[in-house]
Amino acid sequence: MFKSSELLELVNTHIAGLAFTREPRGLYEPVSYVLSLGGKRIRPVLMLMAYNLYKKDVESVLNQAVGIEVYHNYTLLHDDLMDKAERRRGKATVHKVWNENTAILSGDAMLVLAYRFMAAGCPSELLAKVLDLFSLTALEICEGQQYDMDFEARLDVTEAEYLEMIRLKTSVLLASSLKIGAWLGGATEGDASLLYDFGINLGVAFQLKDDWLDVYGNPDIFGKNIGGDILCNKKTYLLIQALGHCDEEQARQLHRWLAATDFNPDEKITAVKSLYDAIGVGSMCLQKIEEYTALAANFLEQVNVPASTKAELKVLMNRLMDREV
Amino acid sequence: MFKSSELLELVNTHIAGLAFTREPRGLYEPVSYVLSLGGKRIRPVLMLMAYNLYKKDVESVLNQAVGIEVYHNYTLLHDDLMDKAERRRGKATVHKVWNENTAILSGDAMLVLAYRFMAAGCPSELLAKVLDLFSLTALEICEGQQYDMDFEARLDVTEAEYLEMIRLKTSVLLASSLKIGAWLGGATEGDASLLYDFGINLGVAFQLKDDWLDVYGNPDIFGKNIGGDILCNKKTYLLIQALGHCDEEQARQLHRWLAATDFNPDEKITAVKSLYDAIGVGSMCLQKIEEYTALAANFLEQVNVPASTKAELKVLMNRLMDREV
Repeated sequence: MFKSSELLELVNTHIAGLAFTREPRGLYEPVSYVLSLGGKRIRPVLMLMAYNLYKKDVESVLNQAVGIEVYHNYTLLHDDLMDKAERRRGKATVHKVWNENTAILSGDAMLVLAYRFMAAGCPSELLAKVLDLFSLTALEICEGQQYDMDFEARLDVTEAEYLEMIRLKTSVLLASSLKIGAWLGGATEGDASLLYDFGINLGVAFQLKDDWLDVYGNPDIFGKNIGGDILCNKKTYLLIQALGHCDEEQARQLHRWLAATDFNPDEKITAVKSLYDAIGVGSMCLQKIEEYTALAANFLEQVNVPASTKAELKVLMNRLMDREV
Repeated sequence: MFKSSELLELVNTHIAGLAFTREPRGLYEPVSYVLSLGGKRIRPVLMLMAYNLYKKDVESVLNQAVGIEVYHNYTLLHDDLMDKAERRRGKATVHKVWNENTAILSGDAMLVLAYRFMAAGCPSELLAKVLDLFSLTALEICEGQQYDMDFEARLDVTEAEYLEMIRLKTSVLLASSLKIGAWLGGATEGDASLLYDFGINLGVAFQLKDDWLDVYGNPDIFGKNIGGDILCNKKTYLLIQALGHCDEEQARQLHRWLAATDFNPDEKITAVKSLYDAIGVGSMCLQKIEEYTALAANFLEQVNVPASTKAELKVLMNRLMDREV
């Protein structure tokens, strides 16, 4: 079995070797730029790990792994444009380096490129179902992004709505990466479904951890500035739980901060964090992460391969959950 | 053989019956809106006509025909956003009715939907090559749009560059519609390629006619306001030829109008049109349209089916070329 670090290196080497040499350069330079920014490459690594549960020649599915990563980076590109985000992985976003039209069009090209990679060399007997799942997943991710944007204007988002949104926006891509990898490796439908469900629950836990790190992360280690979600009133699991569990006085204070337009950033972060601590949403979030991680572990447990074979997936899961970034 | 009007009705009825009922509504309402605006539906009709050269049961490829139309409408949606166009087919564009983020995201969803329609029910032995051509075409169309935007900032666009841009932006989709229809109908590779080349030349003639109609069209009939391209200095075939064939005095006047920021619209249209007339670019354009139409007819001629079978495609071609809108 390959270690996830070996597969990460394989993916990174392969991506570094991709040359998007078609013309015009103005369309393809942003594609190379976005892919060069790095990232954890979790999705392609998960795909290769799922494949590796059944087969050894992981190189043979690198096209599909790259397809998932190109797809993921297209969503970041368009999401950053929609969110007007200026930085991604410490570098200027595409619409800042170039312009908004370039971000739209190069993103569109990346979505098409993702389909091309996904189809390239895919065994013909699997092509229809691989692309069917890929398209459904891409549609669900659009739906998740739409919910996320819809939530910005709402203060009554429920926990269930939020969990469904992150299932769509984050989990289904992790899940599909695993399922497609499993299919390509020749897994049974049963195993492929179990790995999908493992990915769904891992994805929810992963996103909840992201929400938690934004408030409670170690600022020296966590990549983003602590409190970013608080400053822009992002409907995270923490905020939704705070709104749902606060007393009258806490509600008054929370809504005052949510409505504030002119404030000292550090003061807002400190005040909202105090409210979160008083309401206890940090530990609610950690408990939820535990629940979803346990569910994920349980699905992985049921996958019909030797425990030693799937140990590396479990190691990766635990590392993702224990991460400080 | 079906008449193109019958196939158009079939396509329109089918599209009218599509229900995009997934949630959230904010994502799918713009999709239904764009598809309800109508249009000539040339691409799906061409696909069905190509299929109908070989087979009768055109209903069996309606998914693929709709896929092409959904794809085409996604390009219009994103192009209108990039061009900041306010109207499309007499109605407000998606980014005006909703907002820019909705236009980005609903467009993205339409591109994914197009892939789903294209794959739905596609015979498994054809799926790989159909999707391969569809993806290549989608990438070429991005390239064409990028060239089109790049040309905005340039005054030295050559005729060859312009023709290549419209091949990418317009022709390849007509050509692929025909080729995919032919493949689905069981055509030989030879016939499928001839129909592709027929579409390429038809598409160039079609776009040149569009350029010509913008200046010389009958304002009572032509859908857009006459002179729209002149007002925004669009690099059309007419302007490129005018810049290439003007004398020194004409060049001076033309550049003055291109640089003008504060002008009376009617005055600019009249003045530029006079220059076009003096330089003779209207007839150059008509001659080029003839050339490409003749090339298209020649490719169609070689398609290995009885003349009576392909008569309807020739009728459609001539109608597209003689159109006043």
